[in-house]
Amino acid sequence: MRIAILGYGVVGSAVAKALIENDKIIRARCGENIIPVIALARKNKKNALIPITTNIDEILQRDDIDVFVELMGGIEIPFQIVSQILKKKKPVVSANKAMLAYYRYELENLAKNLAFGYEASVGGGIPIIKILKEGLSANNILSIKGILNGTSNYILSAMNTKGIQFYDALKTAQELGYAEADPSFDIEGQDAAHKLLILASIAYGLRAKPEDILIEGISDITSEDMYFAKEFDFTIKLLGIAKTKNSKVELRVHPTMINKDKMIAKVDGVMNAVSITGDLLGENLYYGAGAGGMTTASAVISDLIDIARNEFKGPMLGFRNDFQFELLNKDEIFTKYYLRLKVEDKVGVLSKIAQLMSENGISIDSFLQKPKQDEIHSTLFFTTHSTFEKDIKNLLLILEKQDFIKGKPFMMRIEE
Amino acid sequence: MRIAILGYGVVGSAVAKALIENDKIIRARCGENIIPVIALARKNKKNALIPITTNIDEILQRDDIDVFVELMGGIEIPFQIVSQILKKKKPVVSANKAMLAYYRYELENLAKNLAFGYEASVGGGIPIIKILKEGLSANNILSIKGILNGTSNYILSAMNTKGIQFYDALKTAQELGYAEADPSFDIEGQDAAHKLLILASIAYGLRAKPEDILIEGISDITSEDMYFAKEFDFTIKLLGIAKTKNSKVELRVHPTMINKDKMIAKVDGVMNAVSITGDLLGENLYYGAGAGGMTTASAVISDLIDIARNEFKGPMLGFRNDFQFELLNKDEIFTKYYLRLKVEDKVGVLSKIAQLMSENGISIDSFLQKPKQDEIHSTLFFTTHSTFEKDIKNLLLILEKQDFIKGKPFMMRIEE
Repeated sequence: MRIAILGYGVVGSAVAKALIENDKIIRARCGENIIPVIALARKNKKNALIPITTNIDEILQRDDIDVFVELMGGIEIPFQIVSQILKKKKPVVSANKAMLAYYRYELENLAKNLAFGYEASVGGGIPIIKILKEGLSANNILSIKGILNGTSNYILSAMNTKGIQFYDALKTAQELGYAEADPSFDIEGQDAAHKLLILASIAYGLRAKPEDILIEGISDITSEDMYFAKEFDFTIKLLGIAKTKNSKVELRVHPTMINKDKMIAKVDGVMNAVSITGDLLGENLYYGAGAGGMTTASAVISDLIDIARNEFKGPMLGFRNDFQFELLNKDEIFTKYYLRLKVEDKVGVLSKIAQLMSENGISIDSFLQKPKQDEIHSTLFFTTHSTFEKDIKNLLLILEKQDFIKGKPFMMRIEE
Repeated sequence: MRIAILGYGVVGSAVAKALIENDKIIRARCGENIIPVIALARKNKKNALIPITTNIDEILQRDDIDVFVELMGGIEIPFQIVSQILKKKKPVVSANKAMLAYYRYELENLAKNLAFGYEASVGGGIPIIKILKEGLSANNILSIKGILNGTSNYILSAMNTKGIQFYDALKTAQELGYAEADPSFDIEGQDAAHKLLILASIAYGLRAKPEDILIEGISDITSEDMYFAKEFDFTIKLLGIAKTKNSKVELRVHPTMINKDKMIAKVDGVMNAVSITGDLLGENLYYGAGAGGMTTASAVISDLIDIARNEFKGPMLGFRNDFQFELLNKDEIFTKYYLRLKVEDKVGVLSKIAQLMSENGISIDSFLQKPKQDEIHSTLFFTTHSTFEKDIKNLLLILEKQDFIKGKPFMMRIEE
């Protein structure tokens, strides 16, 4: 089986290297040689393991390529190129989560009876696409909760274990190569949202796009939140969450307070993990590295081996028959919340806040006042019983207008 | 797709129930109805969800059955029946780990181009067969470490968290239905060994049988071992371990001291987990319930859905081409060890023990003496640097003969 690699960066070169170095086990697994024939790169590379071209047409015009591996990045350009390949009835393997977050149904439509592998698009080396699509296929999926972004998890873990502030943890992450120079895509939740949308298509046939769902990042988390979490046996993680409610599914990406005894709360550093609850099997958790050249190559090549084994009959996303959940309106999210308020330390403030909460139908589950930081301000921490998102949002707007509240009230959702 | 269920106990009836109740998602996944047509039971059951017969021939003679699900238990009889079915060119799904531990290569040979699903044989609802066979197929598997028996893990977790002795924990497990009246198959490591052998076939093409590998159970673990583990930041788990060493693979099932910060050390109660390290992707961990009717049904039906999707092209075990590791001789196992010795509390005992260790080429890594329990005996705990199994076995024989040692010296392997 002869393959072309479109994009010869960290992952593309790792795919070539792994195909060459692990050729014995790969051949034993699928009964065939999988040979990287040519790669597309932005500029010519000396010492590349396989022939390189900078001209995409040179690759697309060849008729000796059996499978195309798309590792270019971007959205529109790879979508155009992949569409062209699928129209020529050639199988594709892609790691491009952004393209899939926007065009996965268009691609499924084009792929029809062709193989389209995208194991590498979510969870790095964890075969979470295969697990959800094939391994758990008998289950109605009740929920998916994932640590889907290693950069954010590294930062939150460092803040938690070292007691440092967000920007110091980010700086360390950048020094270690775990965060980009511009880290916004990772820390603002976009990357996790793309991955969550892909998983939600497999589990629920959900057609939403990134702009349709609730996405919040981690940059407002402070060491005070970490302090509260420790006191109340929580851990803070950036989670991608999908949950069914009647015939709808809610999708959200945000920093989350979770009980520290949950398996997913124990996942530290740059690692990824996905917890899936099915109606038959209860909760499962899948854990592993979420990024890195060789890790991603492991997923890309597993798709190639499936294609060589002819085990890729589709459907690409998850369903042969029509099966489709609708997205739950954000306002209808119903969960527990954590609030951090910086207030003037004077008589009557707590009672006033409690009154405002009560007037908005929000009931307090726990309360903590941190010892005073300066002469006039205290930090108050609350958790609430389950309430609707629209009520908590309304409360925040009201609190913000109170003169005894300093700065912006901070809210985080709690997951049990 | 019409199926027959051979064996209508906890799992068999759960398979029928799940096929009926989850028919909508199952049909959406594979584009077909999967219909349980008849089941074999030891005696006729009123109120069964599907027609029951007690006559196996009545089922085998029907020509309207597309797939047979074997859930009978036992080894020889199901092997004969499954062989007969495969010879008639009908696909089989089985949860029978004991049959597979003994006859998996004979079955692979009979199955040839037929589907043979056995996802339910290892790890309950965790799709570990698919993960290892397909998801991690590009990797040379460096190690597998599994908590493969929920009963043993429940007992060890209870001893650890409640500070109780083995037999008290076992009694609680029996009361809760986590352990059988005769628990020996679970607590002596046989069940875990069967599962490990199946995983080792997929990862290494290993042809060993249960009697070829090192199997030790957990019934000699005491609260003193738990005490030591806590002091030295270990957790004790019954692990099934497979590890490559040059061109061989070592296979062993035994209670193990593991660093408490490892993800697998954090798996408590009746849960199962498998940690797999591949050369491309590093360490992954897969966690979930290991037993129970609906959990196992989830795995059985995922195989049926794969068959309906026609995604089951084999090979049954893991390799299309010849690929086979040999089993490492038990004596050549090379690891760190933990020793617990009850000794007479008199001058010179420690120095004598240290001398015997040194004479056998064993070097001490850490040492702890527990405060005296009675007038004349102390318990000594040692951990060693890595050494060969044959040397530690020899040391134990020598120690046993010393008059200052009371009872049998106890040894446990350490995994880092």
